[in-house]
Amino acid sequence: MRLVSYHTRDHAGIGAMVDEWRFVSLARAAPDLPASLKDLLEAGPDALAEVAAAVKGRAPDFRFDQVTLDPVIPDPHAIWALALNFKMHIEETQLTTSAEYPQIFMRMPCSQVGHLEPLWCPDPRVAETFDYEGELAVVIGTPGRHIAPGDALAHVAGYACYNEGSVREFQGHNRQFGLGKNFERSGSFGPWLMTADEFGAPPRHTVVTRLNGVEKQHSSLEDMLFSVEQVIHYLSTGYLLRAGDVIVMGTPGALRPPAGYQPGPYDSKRVPGRTRMKPGDLCEVEITGLGTLRNPIIADPTRLG
Amino acid sequence: MRLVSYHTRDHAGIGAMVDEWRFVSLARAAPDLPASLKDLLEAGPDALAEVAAAVKGRAPDFRFDQVTLDPVIPDPHAIWALALNFKMHIEETQLTTSAEYPQIFMRMPCSQVGHLEPLWCPDPRVAETFDYEGELAVVIGTPGRHIAPGDALAHVAGYACYNEGSVREFQGHNRQFGLGKNFERSGSFGPWLMTADEFGAPPRHTVVTRLNGVEKQHSSLEDMLFSVEQVIHYLSTGYLLRAGDVIVMGTPGALRPPAGYQPGPYDSKRVPGRTRMKPGDLCEVEITGLGTLRNPIIADPTRLG
Repeated sequence: MRLVSYHTRDHAGIGAMVDEWRFVSLARAAPDLPASLKDLLEAGPDALAEVAAAVKGRAPDFRFDQVTLDPVIPDPHAIWALALNFKMHIEETQLTTSAEYPQIFMRMPCSQVGHLEPLWCPDPRVAETFDYEGELAVVIGTPGRHIAPGDALAHVAGYACYNEGSVREFQGHNRQFGLGKNFERSGSFGPWLMTADEFGAPPRHTVVTRLNGVEKQHSSLEDMLFSVEQVIHYLSTGYLLRAGDVIVMGTPGALRPPAGYQPGPYDSKRVPGRTRMKPGDLCEVEITGLGTLRNPIIADPTRLG
Repeated sequence: MRLVSYHTRDHAGIGAMVDEWRFVSLARAAPDLPASLKDLLEAGPDALAEVAAAVKGRAPDFRFDQVTLDPVIPDPHAIWALALNFKMHIEETQLTTSAEYPQIFMRMPCSQVGHLEPLWCPDPRVAETFDYEGELAVVIGTPGRHIAPGDALAHVAGYACYNEGSVREFQGHNRQFGLGKNFERSGSFGPWLMTADEFGAPPRHTVVTRLNGVEKQHSSLEDMLFSVEQVIHYLSTGYLLRAGDVIVMGTPGALRPPAGYQPGPYDSKRVPGRTRMKPGDLCEVEITGLGTLRNPIIADPTRLG
């Protein structure tokens, strides 16, 4: 099952996808169930089974162009994000990381948007390097503390694509990433939650990032240093994982550009093959077997002071 | 005015303090106003003036021992926290930090509790060093982006005390603090929000941390490297500060112990004068002219897996 969070002028709700573009509104098909995806996950697996029964065979209520898609979970208790979780990305950044413990920072809900919504590229007077990071997002279903690695996947409700958009200058201002990972509308989370039963094992999938149709990242999720199971285990030693919590698993490195490639003004000088996002671009993060998260990039419309 | 967030068995709400221990319930004195402090701040300065008028001369409805006090803002959009913002703390940790940009990380709402609520000391099999960090918390009232330093204080609704409890081993597992600053119920935020008009200029105040009645930190807020104005300006370059957002301004260093002091088993070997928190302790963070945040420490009651 694939579930979206969306809103219209008069309501916010959950949708169950019928095809790639249309969905059944749970507000109509199952009005007694919780109206937000976090609340639905909190209600447990029986509630998901009720959704499946309620939407079976129903005609779609909305197309994507009739609504605004929200981040898959608009208001999670926590968004945990991994830095340097692919060997290729560690090599290209020339940064060190612990081999024993994952490197973790936080994103705030208000730093992200849903599928098809514009990402905001910072004003060049504020920052010049706005980078995509295609990643797998894990969404927790069953809460838990002190979860053994072998039990971890039973706590996962499903998966989604994530563009962990990063403002590099701010990320590098000091030791902690802080604001550099939390610019207003700098990341995206979608297009939908694919339930774990349908997605299967994360290592069998591949993440691909495209900028204006050109592949910029392409990596098997088998190449993650810390697996979904290990990260869930680690976080649960200190924190009660809650329904709707999000874990963003880190980004792979840049694909090497083809022979003879001439870098343009938006290409990174440090990492061959990495190109910054700018207004007018379209960025896509695809996870095979899951779907593609698409976001146009626009200039941050906020007036400078 | 001093405002608390609290809940009882049957309702959650806002209280206006009458003395150090008793408050008027806004659910009774002003039932038409928003029921959460974040929503009240979102309603703007007029709503605060209405509160002041509604509670004037009223007898208290509750004592602290009749309710559970919540974190001052239980559900902020964001909690920004500063690392290494006092020279003394930089020297004792022997860590470096940028002189140009503040060092910022995030805490999650669910890592904090209110005044008088127990902080959870990790099981020693999980972690052995649970440290207090007495700090000033700044609460945003008027939203804003691209705020000039000279305008920054006009965006502040008020101030509170914060114990930015830290699990040092986890903080040091890798480059980003991550989980080490976000253990379940590891920090506290209270006792109340003192409105900015009543608190006045932050540098005139002093922060004091006591463990079991013994002073462990004592520093003028004049000694912060980055002022409240500078941090608000910095954050607002990338992020729309929202009503109820929290900025925790960093902790000073440890007071040197008196001559002849014999360190005990819970004293830091690295930083003379720093003593870890353990079950049975009482930790207090006082900010002069504001009040004292008190929390007993108990063992994390969660069963290990």
